[in-house]
Amino acid sequence: MDRLTILKIGGNVVDNPQLLDRLLNDFVRITGYKILIHGGGKLATALANRLGVKTQMVDGRRITDEAMLEIVTMVYGGLVNKQIVAGLQARNCNALGLTGVDLSLMHAQKRLPEEIDYGLVGDINSVNTRELRMLLGESVVPVVAPLTHNGQGQILNTNADTVASQLAIDLALHFSVLLFYCFEKPGVLLNADDDSSIITELSPAKFEELQQEGVINSGMIPKIQNGFNALNKGVNQVIIANPEGFVKTRGTRLVQRKEN
Amino acid sequence: MDRLTILKIGGNVVDNPQLLDRLLNDFVRITGYKILIHGGGKLATALANRLGVKTQMVDGRRITDEAMLEIVTMVYGGLVNKQIVAGLQARNCNALGLTGVDLSLMHAQKRLPEEIDYGLVGDINSVNTRELRMLLGESVVPVVAPLTHNGQGQILNTNADTVASQLAIDLALHFSVLLFYCFEKPGVLLNADDDSSIITELSPAKFEELQQEGVINSGMIPKIQNGFNALNKGVNQVIIANPEGFVKTRGTRLVQRKEN
Repeated sequence: MDRLTILKIGGNVVDNPQLLDRLLNDFVRITGYKILIHGGGKLATALANRLGVKTQMVDGRRITDEAMLEIVTMVYGGLVNKQIVAGLQARNCNALGLTGVDLSLMHAQKRLPEEIDYGLVGDINSVNTRELRMLLGESVVPVVAPLTHNGQGQILNTNADTVASQLAIDLALHFSVLLFYCFEKPGVLLNADDDSSIITELSPAKFEELQQEGVINSGMIPKIQNGFNALNKGVNQVIIANPEGFVKTRGTRLVQRKEN
Repeated sequence: MDRLTILKIGGNVVDNPQLLDRLLNDFVRITGYKILIHGGGKLATALANRLGVKTQMVDGRRITDEAMLEIVTMVYGGLVNKQIVAGLQARNCNALGLTGVDLSLMHAQKRLPEEIDYGLVGDINSVNTRELRMLLGESVVPVVAPLTHNGQGQILNTNADTVASQLAIDLALHFSVLLFYCFEKPGVLLNADDDSSIITELSPAKFEELQQEGVINSGMIPKIQNGFNALNKGVNQVIIANPEGFVKTRGTRLVQRKEN
C-alpha cells in the first residue's frame, strides 16, 4: 500500500509562528501522500475573551455553546486554516483547506449530555474516504480543521486529536498510515519539566502503569488513548513528538506490546 | 459546451436566513455544473464593531488593514462559508468551501496605493481553472469566499462581484456560463424605491445614459461594470436579480447591444 502521513499539529504549535514555519518547511518535504490536521485552541480562547464569550473547559475539552461554535468556525475553519494553506501554497504545496462539513468529509452526531453537556460537540460517525482519496489522487494536500456536521445543517466542534485518529483509522484501509501527533514537547515525558525524559516506546501496559503512578499529564491522556485506538485499528505507526522530532521521526512511539 | 451556472450572493442575502434558505433550495435544483460565490459584508462589519476595529469603506469597497483581514478571513472563509456548505450538504448537494488561497485558485497582487490605499486588497492575476474543472468533474459544488493570495503567504481581500466575474470569464473558455448576481432587489431599478421599475435589459449605452442621469445607485455601478466585462469576455449570460428572480431567470439581463 502507498504511504500516507497524517500530521496533527496542536494549538501551541499553531500559536507560535517560528515553530509553525519550521514545521511547514518540514511538512512540504515529506514524500508520498499527506494530510495536515490542526487545532487552534488558544486563538479561539483569545477571540472569545475579546468578544466577552466565556470559555469553559472540562478535562481539556471545550464546552461549545452557539457563541463558541461561531468562534471556532471562524478561527479553526477560517483564520488558522487559511493561514496554514497560504503558508503551504507559498512553499509550492498544493494545499486545500477543509472541514468535516466540506464534501461531508466527517459526519457526526451531537454528543448526548450525560455527566457533562459539552454542547455542540460532535462524535464522528463516518469519514468520507472516497472524497479524500479522490483529492489525494489529484495531488491535493488536505489541511483539515476539526469541525464536523450532522448532515442537517448543524456544524459541530470535534476534538482535533480524535479527528486525526479517526481519519487515520478509516484511511488505513487504503494506505499504510503514519500518524504523527506534533505538539510543543519532544514526546511523552516521565518528568514534565525535563525534556530529556522522553519515553521512546510506550505500550498499553506501560501507559496504564504510568497513569496509575500519576506520571502522565491529564491533558496527554486522550491524545495517547486516541493513538492506541488508531494503532489497534490498523494504523501503521503512531508517534508523539515536537516539530524537531517530526523531521527526525523521533519522539514517543506507541507500540502494541511491551517494549523489550 | 456544458452549461455552468455561477451564482453570486450578496451580503444582504447572506444576512437574511429566510432569503438564504430559499436561495439554497433553488440553487440545489439547478442542473448542470454550478458554483456559488458569497460575500458577507455586514457580518464582517458587525464583528469588527464588536472587536472595536474600525471599518472604512470607499465607494462600497472596504479598506483592509491587518486587523480587518483577520476578520474577513474568519467571517468569509470560516463562518459564512461553512454555514452555506453545511446548508447545502443538508440538501444533499456535495458542496466544498473554498477561497482563492485553497488550491491556489485565485492568485492576486496587492493593489498599489494610488489615489486610495485599500490596504490588503488583491487584484486577481490568474484563476486556476484546471483545479476548478477537476472538482466540477468530480461532481463537487464549489462555494467560494472572496479571498485571494499573492503566492507568498499573504491572504488578500477581494471584491466578491469581481471574483464572480473573473471566475466566469476564465471558465467561459470551457463552459457556456450563466453568471447570476443575486441581491435583495429584483434587478437594476429606474427608481430605487419602486421594485416594479426593473430595467429588464441593460445595454452599455443605456447604462452610460442612466449613470449620467444619476439614476443608477453608486453601489450598483461596479457590479454592472463587472457584468459587462464578463459579457465582453465570453460569458454567455449575465443577470442581476433577487432570489425569486434567480429561480425564474427574471431580473435585469445585461446585453451587448441596445435593446430593441
